Amino acid sequence: MTAITSQNENFSEWYNQVIQMADLAENAPVRGCMILKPYGYSIWENIQKILDKKIKDTGHKNAYFPIFIPKSYFSKEAEHVDGFAKECAIVTHCRLKQNDNNIIVDPESQLDEEYIIRPTSETIIWNSFSKWIRSYRDLPMKINQWANVCRWEMRTRPFLRTSEFLWQEGHTAHTTRQEALEEVMTMLDTYYDFGKEYLAIPFIKGRKTENEKFAGADETYTLEALMKDGKALQCGTSHLLGQHFSKSFDVKYLNKNNSLEYVWGTSWGISTRIIGALIMTHGDDKGLILPPKIAPVQIVIVPIFNDVDELNKIKDYIKVIIDELEKKDIAVEFDDREEYRPGYKFNEWEIKGVPLRIVVGMNDIKNNTIELVRRDTFEKLSVNIDTSFNEILKILDNIQDNLYNMALSFRENHTFFINDYSEFKDKIKKKDGFIFAHWDGSTITEQKIKEETQATIRCVPLNVKQENGKCIYSNRASEYRVMFAQNY
Amino acid sequence: MTAITSQNENFSEWYNQVIQMADLAENAPVRGCMILKPYGYSIWENIQKILDKKIKDTGHKNAYFPIFIPKSYFSKEAEHVDGFAKECAIVTHCRLKQNDNNIIVDPESQLDEEYIIRPTSETIIWNSFSKWIRSYRDLPMKINQWANVCRWEMRTRPFLRTSEFLWQEGHTAHTTRQEALEEVMTMLDTYYDFGKEYLAIPFIKGRKTENEKFAGADETYTLEALMKDGKALQCGTSHLLGQHFSKSFDVKYLNKNNSLEYVWGTSWGISTRIIGALIMTHGDDKGLILPPKIAPVQIVIVPIFNDVDELNKIKDYIKVIIDELEKKDIAVEFDDREEYRPGYKFNEWEIKGVPLRIVVGMNDIKNNTIELVRRDTFEKLSVNIDTSFNEILKILDNIQDNLYNMALSFRENHTFFINDYSEFKDKIKKKDGFIFAHWDGSTITEQKIKEETQATIRCVPLNVKQENGKCIYSNRASEYRVMFAQNY
Repeated sequence: MTAITSQNENFSEWYNQVIQMADLAENAPVRGCMILKPYGYSIWENIQKILDKKIKDTGHKNAYFPIFIPKSYFSKEAEHVDGFAKECAIVTHCRLKQNDNNIIVDPESQLDEEYIIRPTSETIIWNSFSKWIRSYRDLPMKINQWANVCRWEMRTRPFLRTSEFLWQEGHTAHTTRQEALEEVMTMLDTYYDFGKEYLAIPFIKGRKTENEKFAGADETYTLEALMKDGKALQCGTSHLLGQHFSKSFDVKYLNKNNSLEYVWGTSWGISTRIIGALIMTHGDDKGLILPPKIAPVQIVIVPIFNDVDELNKIKDYIKVIIDELEKKDIAVEFDDREEYRPGYKFNEWEIKGVPLRIVVGMNDIKNNTIELVRRDTFEKLSVNIDTSFNEILKILDNIQDNLYNMALSFRENHTFFINDYSEFKDKIKKKDGFIFAHWDGSTITEQKIKEETQATIRCVPLNVKQENGKCIYSNRASEYRVMFAQNY
Repeated sequence: MTAITSQNENFSEWYNQVIQMADLAENAPVRGCMILKPYGYSIWENIQKILDKKIKDTGHKNAYFPIFIPKSYFSKEAEHVDGFAKECAIVTHCRLKQNDNNIIVDPESQLDEEYIIRPTSETIIWNSFSKWIRSYRDLPMKINQWANVCRWEMRTRPFLRTSEFLWQEGHTAHTTRQEALEEVMTMLDTYYDFGKEYLAIPFIKGRKTENEKFAGADETYTLEALMKDGKALQCGTSHLLGQHFSKSFDVKYLNKNNSLEYVWGTSWGISTRIIGALIMTHGDDKGLILPPKIAPVQIVIVPIFNDVDELNKIKDYIKVIIDELEKKDIAVEFDDREEYRPGYKFNEWEIKGVPLRIVVGMNDIKNNTIELVRRDTFEKLSVNIDTSFNEILKILDNIQDNLYNMALSFRENHTFFINDYSEFKDKIKKKDGFIFAHWDGSTITEQKIKEETQATIRCVPLNVKQENGKCIYSNRASEYRVMFAQNY
């Protein structure tokens, strides 16, 4: 097995190699698409299971809307069409036919109106809302959808930006702006807690600038995370749509006073991109490191044996632990492959980021022990098998906490408060993390900074401290700092 | 609330009305597509949860492949292209642009090669298998995918035939034909058991004729069910692909003797169509009837009250039962809406097919009782609340069994062994169920019968009895009967 390029040498190559060697995904023969291989997909399944429960627990119901959106729907919301109807997959025909030895698109099968493969589903869902919502009794309307969407991206990278990707998209309608804003915040917090508790990723919650917000929203809230190469990754968004879509799709309700009002909307989503965040937040030069609460394989057991007789003895010896762990719903893999040496297996499971390895050999049986090896610290511990169960649970918890704390302290060590533009430019060039700096609030300044440094305003952090200062670029007055970074 | 058209009066109208009034789905503004509304989608979620576990328990792993398939892939398997590359959604362009006040497809964005929205994923998955399979150690390869697929159908009906639908598709590769055939049968049995145990639908297992089999398969096995209007519905299929796709996509493995061989393939799937089967197997003139094991709401509790004070008393009274049921993971809905009368609620939950209704009023509190009303038989039972828990569980089991038994006896009462062609024609015209008749085995005869009667051979049932007879159409010798019906 070839070694992985180190993160310091070439982070982008390291990223691609980890994806390939950990068997997460591969490029598809279709432009900009990827194939989610079983190991990668099982991470997504774990994310879905946990997030789906959280979405339902906050009162949302799942539904499913068509993947095809009539072209005209995009024209209905002016900002939305600018943002989303540019690079997309367009269905124009509905029949193939044989032509000599080729199959060709039958020109006679051209559609009257072209269909767009959904880049996001606001338009088709709000079209339904216009039929579903009649009175205040129908509100709030809280829908979620798990689906594939498509954006014909120019430059693609596995998980981070692909032509087709998987996500959940929530769409809700409310009687008041205040209630819609509360929904936006509830879902932002839901994502934040999910990140903290399960993915071990510390997010920064914030509001997007006018320039960076969702096309068709009043306000966009975001969760930003710092990757190990010092770049920011937007990991989830929650939009206050205001009345943009209710006005475009004529979604009115009869209020308690019997008069018609437009509803207030929200939408919010998290996609397979989050797997990219997992890789780049926790991974190291040995490969992936998965937080125990999201890992498809939480523990791998590697037996050290010379023959089948020894293997069987180890199987008998370890069975009680496996049973106990599985009773607790912990995913254990017993790697009894005879064709590979233990060193090869260690390496393979390290690349795949399995949080804890248990090694058992004939000596362990003699001494009544097992060996535990943590993926995060490589710390080795020989423990008595009879008392090992609680020890294992404790270590898994500890790995989960440690990954979060390491990510948090990495971020803290790469967060800078900068007041001088040349220092700012230096820092950004080095892609050294998050920079908190003053900004005059104008889109022109924001764009100038982006042109000159490639830095974007990732967000105005929530609960930002009031602080009088001067814009790093224009020197104009500013009342709080915003967060800059280079980003994916 | 308007009454539903009776099944006898107009079955097809009854079907559409149940879907609408039970809030399962509605037609989308996109040709031939439907919107799965929350109640309908939650049935699909239950199906997914159970079936996904069964698929994993039989050793398969989930993955995800792109929705776009390059047009050329369809040409690789000659039969497959005939069967699937005809009516399909074709992506030809990837950009829209503003043109005066319209958005139009940018002609400059035409793709070099068109993409087909997957009607099924054999081609793109076998393309991956050609890279993933190297040696016998990689086999069997057992993959499953949950996905949306698209077939541009001419005549569509909700759940039964829609342009886009949801399904799972399993794809496997094996070293021998025998092992592949065992896989085909394992999955056929898995579907059969799932139908029997959860959906309460008795399937007929059988083999498709040459004429009806999957395009690109050696053999297709099917599960056929009888709907209440006497028509057959194909509910799931399992295909022995033989070496068709391994040869088209050059999927060879190194066997233990170090020589290259083509692998043997299977594929199998069940789709949202199965919800149509649920509706038409169990539904009655009052609406849907859902088997308890698949129902999103298993029990609805309707309180009979005159004011909030009474409602609160009922809430307190019934709480212990709700808690006990929820502890057992039984989905209970307490319908405390004040704006609707009990009669309206009874009607609504009957249409939605909730298996068991609990009614509680002030008299019940006085008498320490609750009233149980079964959806399948409308039988009413007043039981002591203290002993009601076990009673409720018993009744749910009983409803599950009863639905299966009713469907089975309906099928048995609508199964005919016919030897005379004019009698056959009469029966088929009446759409009176399954007809077992002799057939000479020729495709021409099969097609003639279809032309003259609209009956198709649904399958050659597995374990069919050997019996010398004469083909109902040609009078030629036949050794066993096959199953005919009109079908969806």
